[in-house]
Amino acid sequence: MTNHDRFLSRAAERMQQSAIRKMGAVVASGRDIISFAPGYPAPDTFPWDAFSEIAAELFASRDPGVLQYGPTRGYRPLLDVIASIQHSRGMDTAIEELLVTTGSQQGLDLVARVLIDPGDVILVELPTYVGAITAFRNVQAAMIGVPQEEDGIDLAALDATLQRLRGEGRRVKFVYVVPNFQNPTGLLIGLQKRERLLEWAQRRDMLLVEDDPYRELYFEDSADEAAVRPIKAADRSGRVVYLSSFSKTLAPGYRVAWIAAPPPLAAKLEMAKQAEDLLTGSLDQRIVYEACRRGILERQLPLLRRHYADKRDVMERALTRDLGDAVSWPKPKGGFFLWLTLPAGIDADRMLPRAIEEGVVYVAGEAFYVDTLRQGQGKNTMRLSFSAPTHDRIEAGVSRLARAVRGELAALATKVAAATPGAP
Amino acid sequence: MTNHDRFLSRAAERMQQSAIRKMGAVVASGRDIISFAPGYPAPDTFPWDAFSEIAAELFASRDPGVLQYGPTRGYRPLLDVIASIQHSRGMDTAIEELLVTTGSQQGLDLVARVLIDPGDVILVELPTYVGAITAFRNVQAAMIGVPQEEDGIDLAALDATLQRLRGEGRRVKFVYVVPNFQNPTGLLIGLQKRERLLEWAQRRDMLLVEDDPYRELYFEDSADEAAVRPIKAADRSGRVVYLSSFSKTLAPGYRVAWIAAPPPLAAKLEMAKQAEDLLTGSLDQRIVYEACRRGILERQLPLLRRHYADKRDVMERALTRDLGDAVSWPKPKGGFFLWLTLPAGIDADRMLPRAIEEGVVYVAGEAFYVDTLRQGQGKNTMRLSFSAPTHDRIEAGVSRLARAVRGELAALATKVAAATPGAP
Repeated sequence: MTNHDRFLSRAAERMQQSAIRKMGAVVASGRDIISFAPGYPAPDTFPWDAFSEIAAELFASRDPGVLQYGPTRGYRPLLDVIASIQHSRGMDTAIEELLVTTGSQQGLDLVARVLIDPGDVILVELPTYVGAITAFRNVQAAMIGVPQEEDGIDLAALDATLQRLRGEGRRVKFVYVVPNFQNPTGLLIGLQKRERLLEWAQRRDMLLVEDDPYRELYFEDSADEAAVRPIKAADRSGRVVYLSSFSKTLAPGYRVAWIAAPPPLAAKLEMAKQAEDLLTGSLDQRIVYEACRRGILERQLPLLRRHYADKRDVMERALTRDLGDAVSWPKPKGGFFLWLTLPAGIDADRMLPRAIEEGVVYVAGEAFYVDTLRQGQGKNTMRLSFSAPTHDRIEAGVSRLARAVRGELAALATKVAAATPGAP
Repeated sequence: MTNHDRFLSRAAERMQQSAIRKMGAVVASGRDIISFAPGYPAPDTFPWDAFSEIAAELFASRDPGVLQYGPTRGYRPLLDVIASIQHSRGMDTAIEELLVTTGSQQGLDLVARVLIDPGDVILVELPTYVGAITAFRNVQAAMIGVPQEEDGIDLAALDATLQRLRGEGRRVKFVYVVPNFQNPTGLLIGLQKRERLLEWAQRRDMLLVEDDPYRELYFEDSADEAAVRPIKAADRSGRVVYLSSFSKTLAPGYRVAWIAAPPPLAAKLEMAKQAEDLLTGSLDQRIVYEACRRGILERQLPLLRRHYADKRDVMERALTRDLGDAVSWPKPKGGFFLWLTLPAGIDADRMLPRAIEEGVVYVAGEAFYVDTLRQGQGKNTMRLSFSAPTHDRIEAGVSRLARAVRGELAALATKVAAATPGAP
């Protein structure tokens, strides 16, 4: 058999499987496992009947474009709809700034390929989205994390990090941020801080990559439309590349998302996409377009906000009931995720077999930390997705998690006792 | 405004728009243009009713997987179907060797990312598929072309090229071939040559990337099942990465294709795909799976073979009628393309405005030539796709093309006469 290692690119040598996708294999194993691991939308919220009607009409039309190749930029009527969505979010976006992508994951990958050379530094929130880590790592970026405060990324630390890196002669390309209900922490960057971040980017001649898949899913008891205003809405000088998606509001299986970028970058992103997959699925783009045109998306949003806010409530109540003061988390004001900090000493990754034994999975926090200087950070954290399971399953899952945590604490106590000289 | 050039990666600096996709803009301009440019399947052959029925049942099932995220490798039942398609083509392929891709374009891109470092050499047929050129160029590969004979790539030239490059210390990663009805020439690699190519790869410790989108579309008057046997069917030592697709047999708008690769490479290709788009569209994969399971694909194939063979006949007759001995081409034994050689002196790219004036477009042959040492080669060639236009449009398009060629020849004669000293 051929030894294939010798043929691999340096990028491929460094490629790793994502911790979240690995978790999929555990859940698929057939046991009764309650999964808080992947950020899946709730399939019972999908507008099945509307989609079915749209698909029937599209097929009946015999319009070749429904199943044919099409332009790399995207289906033109869909681009127009996206421009109007951008407008409703406070951004005036020309068509030549837009590109439909095959999910926001492709958006991140295209951004990575167009902006990053091996060794370039990307600054990211600490912790940050694993999909971005994967995309940036696959082009051999160096990622440096910047801690977050209650209202998002620490600007003083950000500036100090940039200055230090520039002092070392490193080329820093952009800051990657998820300002709305960040994955994994659920945090929201404060409005004032958004402005200051943009001013900083201008002053320091940096780009910002703003990833915004969750913005429509604000929970009305704690956030509103104004609180989720994109950084790009104030961008007058082409500093911000903005990504958003229909995956969390219509359905992820269509793989339809978009990038809004300054025209010279949008042109390069299109060329990168041309090589990557020629175009996003034609039927998928048409269905998403029709769902927007017919007001389906509009009708979904308030339902989704309530649906996910209720699930957050169920998870918070269960955590308080079953784990009380042993754990803490910032209250999610929107999105899919709750970021749990466990008692110090617990290693969420090492606890995973025990959790699986109890019948529950999560993503250990470590996966979201990129900073090699800080390795070991976040060991006692985990990301819990409350989006997909039912209320009952969320409650049962938290009880299972609590049993795993208590079991782990007991095991740690025994180990400490055994290691203490003179203990009985 | 920010100067974005400074932020571009070296790969992005080199990215270019594909000649074929540019042509799309001309056709979209609204004039009556007959397009022989893109390799589009004929939309009137799509099994619209079957697709409609399948989609209705999938939506009615409310099966979350129809619209949810799913495994990066692909929908498991679809992978099983692909394994059986592989088997019917003479290849025994284990599931861990397979990966569903978002069109074969993604397959080429993943292969490029997993195997190529900047500066690595890839050997390609001359001329070769532009989508592959784009994917390989985007990872900064150096491409070197090897001429083709009547039965495909010239093995003596291939070996001489490899030895020369190795002598120069270059790292040559693989040979990219389209053995069945090559894009753009329509050529078929002879069966004996396939065997010798594989033996050569083994002897010289090379990989082969075998791109096979057209194999089902052999024309029964000039080729058969035996003639399109994949090189990979004889591969016992993991030398061949094989790509194929449902785009040409079901519909391209679904973006469903696959790679079969030795397990260590398949694992890396999966990791690359994870970063690139997480998964191929869920609904698309389900529709394609159902179309296979229900025998729709099976029923399509003989219809498609006749459909495209008839169109090839129409184009050949029209070319003989309108251009006679002025042009030549190898008879397409399958696929979508006819590779036309024009009278010497005509530059197909420079003739394009005249052709557009006449109301016809094609892809000038130059786009398919990668070899910088041979620039200028293929200037008097063009790729004509006979797949999408109706019989009438093919006839009319060839007449328009003939007018453009005659106009171009007349203009050249005038220019020559004007440049001849002493001419009246």
